[in-house]
Formats: sequence, C-alpha cells, structure tokens
Amino acid sequence: MKFYGYFRSSAAFRVRIAMNLKGVAPEFAFIHLRRQEQVAPAYTRVNPQQLVPALVLDDGTALAQSLAILEYLEETHPEPPILPRDPVGRARVRSLAMIPACEIHPIQNLRVLGYLGTACGQDEAGKQAWARHWIDVGFTAYEASVAGHPQTGRFSHGDAPTIADMCLVPQVFNARRFGNDLTRYPTLMRIFEACMAVPAFDQAQPAKQPDAEA
Amino acid sequence: MKFYGYFRSSAAFRVRIAMNLKGVAPEFAFIHLRRQEQVAPAYTRVNPQQLVPALVLDDGTALAQSLAILEYLEETHPEPPILPRDPVGRARVRSLAMIPACEIHPIQNLRVLGYLGTACGQDEAGKQAWARHWIDVGFTAYEASVAGHPQTGRFSHGDAPTIADMCLVPQVFNARRFGNDLTRYPTLMRIFEACMAVPAFDQAQPAKQPDAEA
Repeated sequence: MKFYGYFRSSAAFRVRIAMNLKGVAPEFAFIHLRRQEQVAPAYTRVNPQQLVPALVLDDGTALAQSLAILEYLEETHPEPPILPRDPVGRARVRSLAMIPACEIHPIQNLRVLGYLGTACGQDEAGKQAWARHWIDVGFTAYEASVAGHPQTGRFSHGDAPTIADMCLVPQVFNARRFGNDLTRYPTLMRIFEACMAVPAFDQAQPAKQPDAEA
Repeated sequence: MKFYGYFRSSAAFRVRIAMNLKGVAPEFAFIHLRRQEQVAPAYTRVNPQQLVPALVLDDGTALAQSLAILEYLEETHPEPPILPRDPVGRARVRSLAMIPACEIHPIQNLRVLGYLGTACGQDEAGKQAWARHWIDVGFTAYEASVAGHPQTGRFSHGDAPTIADMCLVPQVFNARRFGNDLTRYPTLMRIFEACMAVPAFDQAQPAKQPDAEA
C-alpha cells in the first residue's frame, strides 16, 4: 500500500493515527499542499478529488477521503477496533467524528482560507478570525456532546480510542495554530491529552513526519 | 422513532431518502432553520450540535449527523442495502458521499453564508457566487470520479442507490437554487435523473414535505 499525505493535513493526520494503531505500514508519498501538488496531473490521476490523503492498495485501487479510509481500515484490519460494536455507539462515535470532519475542517482548510482572500478580500487577520470562529462553533458542540455524557470515558467514547478521537486531535493542533482559547473546552482537552499519551497519536503528529517543515 | 428535520436541509433530505427506501417511518418534527429554532434550548437538548437532522430512538437516545444516521439505518435495517458489501466498494461509495457532505455542503450552508455576510461583508450576490464556486469545485471532483469509472452504473456505484446518491441529489437541488451550470457535469446529472425516477428520492424532495414553503 502507498499513502499520499502532507504533514500538516488534518485529514492525513487522522489516517496516520489509525494506521499506527492497527500496525498498517504503507509506503509514504508526500504531496505538498502549499506548492499545489495536489492539483498536478500526476496526483489528479491518483485522486480526482485533488485532496489528501489517498491510500493506494496493492492492486492499484486508490481510496480517497479520510473517513472512508478509516472505515476501510476498520473493515479490513479490525484489531484493535476504532469503532464500538453496537450500532448506537457507532452512530455516536461517527457523529462526534463528523464535528471536526464535516463542520470545522472543511470550512477552515487551506483552500477555503485562500479563496476568502482572493474572492472576499480577507487579509491574514480576517482569515484567522474566520478559522477561529468555526473552530469555536464546532468545539462548543463537541464539548456539549462529551461533557457529562455517560458514554464518555478516558476517550470520547469509552476507554479506547475511536475515529472520534482521530478527528478531534488534528483539529486541536489547528486550533492552537489559529490561537483559539482552548480553556473553554475542558472535557475535549482532557480527551486530547489522553490521546497524546498514546504513541499512535503522538507519532502521527505533523512535526514528527518526514516532510515536516518549521 | 422521531425525526427532526427541515424541508430544505440537504442533510435531512439525505436521511429522508434512506428512510423511504428502507421503509422506516418515524414521527416527524420540524425545526425551522431560518427562524433559528435549531439553537433554541428545547432542540439543543435533543441535539447539542444544534443542527438538523436528528433521529431520536424509542428509548430517547438521539442520533446526530446525517452520515452517521445513514450508517445506523444500514446496520439496523439492512434491506435494501445502501452500501456495497465489499470493503473497496464501500470505501468508494463513502468517498463519493463525502464530496457533497464534507467538501461542498458545510461550506455553503445557511450558517456559513450568513457569517459571510456579517463577518466578511458579502452581499447576496457575493454569497451566491461563493456557494456556486464550492459547488463547482465539488461537482468537478464528483464528475471526475464517476465518469468512465468501471463501477459507475445506473447510479453512482452500480445499479442500486447508495449513500453516495443520497448525498448527491440534495446537492443538485441546492446547485439549481444557486444557479450553477449543471451541463458541465453530464454523468452526475444522468445519475441525478436516475435517482429522481425512484419514488424514495422523489418523495423526499423539499417541495413534498409537510413543512415546505414556496
């Protein structure tokens, strides 16, 4: 297998955590998003969505979208599980995962912030305020969903990491870059710290990737 | 079961299609998004994410996020299936579903367009141009992913509807409202027409809901 990622991509970070946890060790390839390598013809042939990550299987089939890749890894490498076994628990975990994956990250990723500049005349301060706003909206929802919930444990759902945690952690890294006040989210941050104590999460962080930049 | 939706919500529309297809008939409740009913305390207690849809089970458990609800329906009401059986096919369908669900709709929904006005000074024309842009980016990726692909059939994946189609169809309704040129996406639109010929899709459309407005 070959994994196409970028050190700072939240979506690639999610999948790196799952691969570390499940002991999946593909070849790595690096797509430099700030250099627009994701829209180059060579990568567009791999992933017509022009986004990272992509996971290319040994038969050449390319899988796109981080959440779809996480589900694929769970179905093909079930141990350790990253989803609960009961349908209600699975729905809870997926709905938590989708707060960063659908409600925050798509609105504050590199291409949207770039377009805010070119099409809406926003300067750097305006872009950063936009990003902080949507992170706060989403983190407020996440905190409300985990604080005091009987199924919240050491992690977002129980005492083992799930795809919810894999989506949450990269978003906290982004929030720190944008300067959000994270003291507003004590349960979320308690879960974040528990995750970062797990080597699979720690080793997946942007600064520890071969393509990392200062 | 009780389903909280809004006639024009893409995310609620997706789930209505799946419920129609699987013969799931909950009680319906209507949350008026333009009147901000989704942030009222009564609904926030149901769904702390303050978004529609939500599906409340008979024991009171509330499920949020349309894609999580679609997966729950598939796990608890498996016939007819809305995901393929093979992991690679499931990954393809989920990655297609996530083009509208993660890459388009979150960037052009009501709350983001509203914030573009208040925080970035965009007028109605600016908001509509923003929406059209992100729909075009996403639909270009969708068209490239289905056109000529050996697994594309009558629908996005094979000859039976999947969650990819359930996410695509509401986004086409939005695209028409924003005035996108849909002739650029011939395969996508061929699939859309095939979907709309299926009663489960047709009956789920916004204009046919009890809370529909002109």
